[in-house]
Amino acid sequence: MSIYFIRMKNSKPSILHLDQIKSCLKKVDLIPLIEEGFVAYSEGRSVVPPVGELIFEDPPGDTHIKYGYIRNQEYYTVKIASGFYNNPAIGLKASQGIMLIFSQSTGLLECILLDGGFLTDIRTVIASMITIKYLAPDEVKRVGVMGTGIQAALQLEYLCKYFKYKDIMIWGRDKEKAVDLKNKMHDLPCQIHVCKDSTELANRCDVIITTTASDSPILNYKDLRPNVHITALGSDTGHKVELDSSILERSDIVVSDSISQSHSRGEVFRARQAGCINDTEMIELGQLIANPSLGRKGGDEITVADLTGVAVQDIMIATAIYNHYLNGSE
Amino acid sequence: MSIYFIRMKNSKPSILHLDQIKSCLKKVDLIPLIEEGFVAYSEGRSVVPPVGELIFEDPPGDTHIKYGYIRNQEYYTVKIASGFYNNPAIGLKASQGIMLIFSQSTGLLECILLDGGFLTDIRTVIASMITIKYLAPDEVKRVGVMGTGIQAALQLEYLCKYFKYKDIMIWGRDKEKAVDLKNKMHDLPCQIHVCKDSTELANRCDVIITTTASDSPILNYKDLRPNVHITALGSDTGHKVELDSSILERSDIVVSDSISQSHSRGEVFRARQAGCINDTEMIELGQLIANPSLGRKGGDEITVADLTGVAVQDIMIATAIYNHYLNGSE
Repeated sequence: MSIYFIRMKNSKPSILHLDQIKSCLKKVDLIPLIEEGFVAYSEGRSVVPPVGELIFEDPPGDTHIKYGYIRNQEYYTVKIASGFYNNPAIGLKASQGIMLIFSQSTGLLECILLDGGFLTDIRTVIASMITIKYLAPDEVKRVGVMGTGIQAALQLEYLCKYFKYKDIMIWGRDKEKAVDLKNKMHDLPCQIHVCKDSTELANRCDVIITTTASDSPILNYKDLRPNVHITALGSDTGHKVELDSSILERSDIVVSDSISQSHSRGEVFRARQAGCINDTEMIELGQLIANPSLGRKGGDEITVADLTGVAVQDIMIATAIYNHYLNGSE
Repeated sequence: MSIYFIRMKNSKPSILHLDQIKSCLKKVDLIPLIEEGFVAYSEGRSVVPPVGELIFEDPPGDTHIKYGYIRNQEYYTVKIASGFYNNPAIGLKASQGIMLIFSQSTGLLECILLDGGFLTDIRTVIASMITIKYLAPDEVKRVGVMGTGIQAALQLEYLCKYFKYKDIMIWGRDKEKAVDLKNKMHDLPCQIHVCKDSTELANRCDVIITTTASDSPILNYKDLRPNVHITALGSDTGHKVELDSSILERSDIVVSDSISQSHSRGEVFRARQAGCINDTEMIELGQLIANPSLGRKGGDEITVADLTGVAVQDIMIATAIYNHYLNGSE
């Protein structure tokens, strides 16, 4: 009640810059929070309309607006995140973004998170870690990460942090960038091996994470080990694709962070178009988290998680940062 | 080129508070700018996806996200605007909002306009003035404004400012509020008469503007003068309605700010549902601005403009404020 009163009087929103956001983030345990978000989503306790989208042609770019709320929480959030792929050539990050937190009871803007796309990167790597937590085989000797961008680097960092994997293979469409990534991540407590081709990675890894913006498959069914988990997170639109559709067709378990969203985006969308999969063969990530027995049964199994990103992740991460900021500054 | 360089180095967005926004606004001539936006929209030079929407039940509220860009301009904009109708009871404005300006070429967030819904109110009254400019009868003796909220007050102010009308009638569903509005606006250089009922207003006015959140008609065809223009701007959703559908059925000219949007919102939506009008009988506001001969022919005519609000208005007003701020501070 007293907090509410203070906020009523101070109607100017809090504005958090990237350094403040990073500092708050260090003290928040995101995995259980984002799991809670996925469960709320799959149980129908969230309101998450279809993603808003703007496409730009010259220079090429796309902007996605993800927004929504979880019922009976205090806030709703709106995220605007974009990718402008020519940015690095002029010294800017390709991904840009901002998150906004509003009161569910008054509509007042409470907080502006000037994260420049950083929190989207973080909530994506956290979602990836959640899929691995629930779907990786019992014994993982080697993990493969495909792609060489910011998200690939984050995967390496978080794989070490959460799972203590010691043997990681990487591959990129541009081999030089893969070598650069290995060099950049030399401080991590793991061995990083740059694969000569994607087949080598597929042949040798028990867990594979794909993080590219490829528009043709980079991973083929025939190259996979018989007991493998794949998390595909590079494709979040209708035209990007990383997995050969027969992977989804022949997988034992296919998990999507949002089955309804996979009707128009991601790997599942492409495999659906090819007639390789339908909704009844899929599990939503929030269902799996609520009931882990829906996962791996123990024998040789191929499992796939397709992540296109859901606003509940943004809601949970933005709220966690803001609550930490409020508690820390009171 | 030099400006671009300066902005590249300073990647933090400009943050404009309401007092700065109001100060910039005084120096900008909005009518031609917003007309330009409507024309770009009707000529297909803008990209304006469907409005994003969040509905809240307890307390009741709604949030609309309007976003888009005009091709070959420098920015794209996103507006988040909400109405929480229990707010006044706790001392807050019902309408809240924020506008964001991003670069079309990099996605960088350039400016945050903390307008709290103010610019939405302004771009709405400007659109109303534009409809009156193009559709009012040649001779206007009396203008009527229906509704008693912020938008009604703005209409009174701008009607005096732009058209020098001297004789204005007002009516509200709550007569006490109508009297309060008259008292509040006593400084305006016009006579304000509070009507005893909506029939009195309809019987006597040559231009009528409706600004209520009514969900049943407040204006009936049988009460209208034979030579009248009506601008309806209160309904921006599928359930709100201010005009008896037969008004649209029997009008000589029906103008909509967005024909596609009127398939799901506003007066036209309701009249379409009742089978009283179809798209071929309508003119889009941008078409009328580009070709004023589509308007009134000179005899007795009933004309209606139905405004549900289009992102081009937000794009134009936000960009105008920001450009003025940049030029002013350079």
